[in-house]
Amino acid sequence: MFTLDPRLERDTILLGEFPLSKVLLMNDARYPWLILVPKVTGVTELFQLNDKQQEQLMRESNFVAKALNDLVQADKMNVAALGNVVSQLHIHHVARYQSDETWPAPVWGKGEAVAYSEQEITAVCQQITAVLSDLLHDAS
Amino acid sequence: MFTLDPRLERDTILLGEFPLSKVLLMNDARYPWLILVPKVTGVTELFQLNDKQQEQLMRESNFVAKALNDLVQADKMNVAALGNVVSQLHIHHVARYQSDETWPAPVWGKGEAVAYSEQEITAVCQQITAVLSDLLHDAS
Repeated sequence: MFTLDPRLERDTILLGEFPLSKVLLMNDARYPWLILVPKVTGVTELFQLNDKQQEQLMRESNFVAKALNDLVQADKMNVAALGNVVSQLHIHHVARYQSDETWPAPVWGKGEAVAYSEQEITAVCQQITAVLSDLLHDAS
Repeated sequence: MFTLDPRLERDTILLGEFPLSKVLLMNDARYPWLILVPKVTGVTELFQLNDKQQEQLMRESNFVAKALNDLVQADKMNVAALGNVVSQLHIHHVARYQSDETWPAPVWGKGEAVAYSEQEITAVCQQITAVLSDLLHDAS
């Protein structure tokens, strides 16, 4: 059975699931930031997924990047599978602005995450789940 | 007609072309690092490619990541479409080691690139083009 990495679980809020992936909101109010985690045990690299999983992940990743970009009108989306700290395969989708505190550097390892307030979480989760509703279902 | 961004051209060595993408070696001997640039004018985000292009880029990206990983036996591949500095869509494939100078941070914007010597370039290009030969053809 697939288990989410404990650090990913600690740092994020679960929004729901796509057919292949868990959909997580990074709990960092500095950046609109969604993470997809394919529910496949023991995979650390994109190319380790089978062909069908690779295609499905591509569809889910491009869907979430476009939806988030359209929602927040980013200057640039940063899409990345890094995994140097958490090796469980996960794909970042970070909406970036030329005015954000880290631009143009990547966001990872820069500064401290700013957790959302409970009120913010409710609003942000509602906004994002609304634009993902075509693929999203509740976590089982 | 598609034109490579001047900064990408300056910082890399052209290895050849895949059906969709130009294949570039980053001229930085600190990391085995390949970049794919889809030959599609005016595109800055993955989701702006049409469905066929998205599928082809996924195949090319996973092929190049696996080939480079197998060749250099990386501890982790970092695959990323960022574009905060150069907006022309390009996908990084960086082979990382726990012993490299930036681990576990991302490589972008850290330290100074170390250019390959002419002798190194010849050897590295030969090694890499050999493992990419199934998809690679000379730049036209």
